Amino acid sequence: MTMHRYRSHTCAQLRKSDVGNSVRLSGWVHRVRDHGGLLFIDLRDHYGLTQIVADPDSPAFKIAETLRGEWVIRVDGEVKARLPETTNANLPTGEIEIFAREIEVLSAAKELPLPVFGEPDYPEDIRLKYRFLDLRRETLHKNIVARTKIIAEMRKRMGEVGFTEFSTPILTASSPEGARDFLVPSRIHPGTFYALPQAPQQYKQLIMVSGFDRYFQIAPCFRDEDPRADRLPGEFYQLDLEMSFVEQDDVLSTMEPVMRGVFETFANGKPVTQKFQRIPYDVAMRKYGSDKPDLRNPIEMQAVSDHFRDSGFKVFANILANDPKAEVWGIPAKTGGSRAFCDRMNSWAQGEGQPGLGYIFWRKEGDKLEGAGPLAKNIGEERTEAIRLQLGLADGDAAFFVAGDPKKFVSFAGAARTRAGEELNLVDRERFELCWIVDFPFFEWNEEEKKIDFAHNPFSMPQGGIDALNGEDLLGIKAFQYDMVCNGFEIASGGIRNHLPETMVKAFETVGLDRATVEERFGGLYRAFQYGAPPHGGMAAGVDRVVMLLVGAKNLREITMFPMNQQAYDLLMNAPSEASPQQLRDLALRVAPVKKD
Amino acid sequence: MTMHRYRSHTCAQLRKSDVGNSVRLSGWVHRVRDHGGLLFIDLRDHYGLTQIVADPDSPAFKIAETLRGEWVIRVDGEVKARLPETTNANLPTGEIEIFAREIEVLSAAKELPLPVFGEPDYPEDIRLKYRFLDLRRETLHKNIVARTKIIAEMRKRMGEVGFTEFSTPILTASSPEGARDFLVPSRIHPGTFYALPQAPQQYKQLIMVSGFDRYFQIAPCFRDEDPRADRLPGEFYQLDLEMSFVEQDDVLSTMEPVMRGVFETFANGKPVTQKFQRIPYDVAMRKYGSDKPDLRNPIEMQAVSDHFRDSGFKVFANILANDPKAEVWGIPAKTGGSRAFCDRMNSWAQGEGQPGLGYIFWRKEGDKLEGAGPLAKNIGEERTEAIRLQLGLADGDAAFFVAGDPKKFVSFAGAARTRAGEELNLVDRERFELCWIVDFPFFEWNEEEKKIDFAHNPFSMPQGGIDALNGEDLLGIKAFQYDMVCNGFEIASGGIRNHLPETMVKAFETVGLDRATVEERFGGLYRAFQYGAPPHGGMAAGVDRVVMLLVGAKNLREITMFPMNQQAYDLLMNAPSEASPQQLRDLALRVAPVKKD
Repeated sequence: MTMHRYRSHTCAQLRKSDVGNSVRLSGWVHRVRDHGGLLFIDLRDHYGLTQIVADPDSPAFKIAETLRGEWVIRVDGEVKARLPETTNANLPTGEIEIFAREIEVLSAAKELPLPVFGEPDYPEDIRLKYRFLDLRRETLHKNIVARTKIIAEMRKRMGEVGFTEFSTPILTASSPEGARDFLVPSRIHPGTFYALPQAPQQYKQLIMVSGFDRYFQIAPCFRDEDPRADRLPGEFYQLDLEMSFVEQDDVLSTMEPVMRGVFETFANGKPVTQKFQRIPYDVAMRKYGSDKPDLRNPIEMQAVSDHFRDSGFKVFANILANDPKAEVWGIPAKTGGSRAFCDRMNSWAQGEGQPGLGYIFWRKEGDKLEGAGPLAKNIGEERTEAIRLQLGLADGDAAFFVAGDPKKFVSFAGAARTRAGEELNLVDRERFELCWIVDFPFFEWNEEEKKIDFAHNPFSMPQGGIDALNGEDLLGIKAFQYDMVCNGFEIASGGIRNHLPETMVKAFETVGLDRATVEERFGGLYRAFQYGAPPHGGMAAGVDRVVMLLVGAKNLREITMFPMNQQAYDLLMNAPSEASPQQLRDLALRVAPVKKD
Repeated sequence: MTMHRYRSHTCAQLRKSDVGNSVRLSGWVHRVRDHGGLLFIDLRDHYGLTQIVADPDSPAFKIAETLRGEWVIRVDGEVKARLPETTNANLPTGEIEIFAREIEVLSAAKELPLPVFGEPDYPEDIRLKYRFLDLRRETLHKNIVARTKIIAEMRKRMGEVGFTEFSTPILTASSPEGARDFLVPSRIHPGTFYALPQAPQQYKQLIMVSGFDRYFQIAPCFRDEDPRADRLPGEFYQLDLEMSFVEQDDVLSTMEPVMRGVFETFANGKPVTQKFQRIPYDVAMRKYGSDKPDLRNPIEMQAVSDHFRDSGFKVFANILANDPKAEVWGIPAKTGGSRAFCDRMNSWAQGEGQPGLGYIFWRKEGDKLEGAGPLAKNIGEERTEAIRLQLGLADGDAAFFVAGDPKKFVSFAGAARTRAGEELNLVDRERFELCWIVDFPFFEWNEEEKKIDFAHNPFSMPQGGIDALNGEDLLGIKAFQYDMVCNGFEIASGGIRNHLPETMVKAFETVGLDRATVEERFGGLYRAFQYGAPPHGGMAAGVDRVVMLLVGAKNLREITMFPMNQQAYDLLMNAPSEASPQQLRDLALRVAPVKKD
């Protein structure tokens, strides 16, 4: 039998049972070591590493001496068992090595601009320009493989619960969905433009109106946004889905096991929430100061206004007296009961532009548990004890307080909760805590323009339907809209859609857009709703964010194969670049000089 | 237990065993029939049809009377067995019907611009504008579902043979690969442009150089081409793949079972080629007059020059005498042996701009098999018989002849073979005949510019490598390049790549492009090859074409969910459209007036 031209085995396959066999391997020279005349070569491919030995008597030795890192070679040789003391237990092939008989250089490498072995930190622009080297590094290679496995797992699980994958067009219409569109000039219709989809929102709803029941897609989405640390310029991927004849509970109870399963499969044994809490938006804001709470942080805030009303702490008492909307919230901080920690929190708050962060901490004085700090003194023992009991605190714990209009302080309170949890190591980092946030407000007040706006997705169904839209308390209307949150990140967002054209028009009219505008901007969808539209809803999960959480990456570029740099420039392919005069003529375009401000 | 808001079952689920149960269904009113006061409603959803009955005593009757086609309704009622004589054996739910107790209209429909029931032919622009109605029609709905199942099957089988799916960037660099790029203006770098990928060719090779072993992708590709009947404007999908450390045979023997499996899964029992022939390009051209032969057509052409050399048929004899390159090819046509058929072929050839199509047909005259027609008379009995024996023909058969330089007549000869096969019903339409075409020429002669050009893919490895490129017979060099062909259509194309930078430069120099041009145009890839590139190769299969073959569709719009029309216009979403002045300012672009020619 003739051997394959390049390999009889991959670099991860050989075991002790192969000892004595003649084999052929191909791969990259990961590392060469010279041990007293013997050359040891770590040969690497996609699958793993195998140790090659070239001794001076081998006909391969002369070539072996010339090898440098990242050369691609073919090696023929014999599998030998390693001595027990040289066995490498960390390597699946660690019990054997190959004594090289013949080495062929398949492709040499110039001096490397970027080391592959050892993975020291390296400037990002070099890593992106030589991405083909960067991707050979162990961590990035593993992340990229994990990414594709996570996506495959999503596909598998979506199929198992009856979803069918459909692709939606990438060259489509400009959609005024919020972010900026990427435009694509049309050559056949000069002077006009396609747009790349910000999300397949309208298409997926059209798929439902077209009579398909459960759609999903690993969907490329495009938003022309200014560089942000947590977003790659250009494209990103969503697990996008939609279902017909459903209510909110159907979407939640269908997708919860799918996402939990994906997390469990790649959690490396870390615990994953078994039953996701469904937390109303209002509750989340009050308990966690955020609509994407990190539930690994056990701190739950509580309103403690009554304990401060008419109290000796005049700052809070006055705030409460002067503004009927004002409240005082307490942030319980178990184990935070030292003056040093409380002062640190106070300084941090001042650094955040706050006047400070009031606190009480409790300590045993002899047999007596005593509240300490200026606030405790001002409000007295009884109120201090009532606060302690309400917040469930004990010796060595602290509480922080914020006062005013909750709308204004809520995000600071949330940040203080996060800060306290992290500083005190109350956050268990080795777990995935998932929950749903539900009942988002449908409208919000736009203070600048003194008008009502959509709070989130204008396509969502308002709870209470058209009756609610015709009612008095518009800002009190909730939407059938929900987020999935993991460890403080929004990982998915969705809603039950407004499939009733009259309700849709009414909702848009409320924010000041008339029927004609709806017809113009969302013509496809609006028209479709006139011809028998099923009730439907769905959601979209951020693939990139899920992958980052699961592999523990901090930067999107660590989980993306060929990312652009932060300036939206592709250093590997040199894009964007100038168009040729012919291309511009074909598109009936001229580049206009840019006016510098 | 409370019932689901919309349905207890889909419209395809209920069987005789459900008789007596109270159920809830939702779906579209497919058809309403009035049978002597009883109303019969076919209720349709994604999964199937169920018959609803409303009798005048039912509280639902009043609403049932108002229903029109494509309204979306919810029906509560009782499952009853149909009488044997009204059972519908074509319907999985055909043994039962639902006696409606309550009907709720979930969404009414205006008068339909396009019928859903019955699927009569309808103008394409209406179908595209109301695609959400068109997609409800049975055939299109089935095609789209088949398409997604075929793609899922491709994914599954690629995974089974060790390939990993990676997405490559959609916003990338302009690539001079032949067709026109779609450009995407950059806002952050005004005056410059990204391009949408014509194919992920460079990226997939970079993935190999990055050390991943077996890549695939259901890849969106974009080519800004003028409208053509067999291509949709804009985007199309490829099953794109690449493998490292392989030779041509590896790619072919890996992909043959994958594609055969996909075909067998969806062939509906039609036979699929078990072992694909590997036909060298030169042989295919000589036997079939095409590099994408329809092997369901049994006709194989043969050179019969010697029988005409110095013969009494002066036209051919002179052609052969005057041009050393000249040949005469015979096209055997079993069962074509009638003067009427031969004359019809001759007229067709004249319609194609040919001087005519010489023929001989054979018939029994008494006991003697005799060649008939003017050619037979001119060359005499002996040569006529020699031709018959060479071509394996018998009583009632014919042969057609073309003479001259094969380069010039080959495509006409191929068309004549196709025509004869189809006219004589020699083509078995109920099967899938697959084969490989291999050994494509690497270079071709550009007669206009009097220079050598790449015949196909410049990234392929020339057989014989750099030595061949340094040799004399450049036009004789074959490439490691191959197509997969099914029933006369090229369904995939690929090659072993040229991973050696010096061989790459030499190949480009041969067609007149110097090293600097290679570096500029293919910088990412050329740079990558300097740093340890594995030998690699792959291919790309046309998803749309495979789907069309398998579902038997003649038009791409019959297998695409949201296609543009032939003029590259999206009638559903109204794209392309004008950009706003603000958008153009952001992109530093002006629309230049188009000069009419």
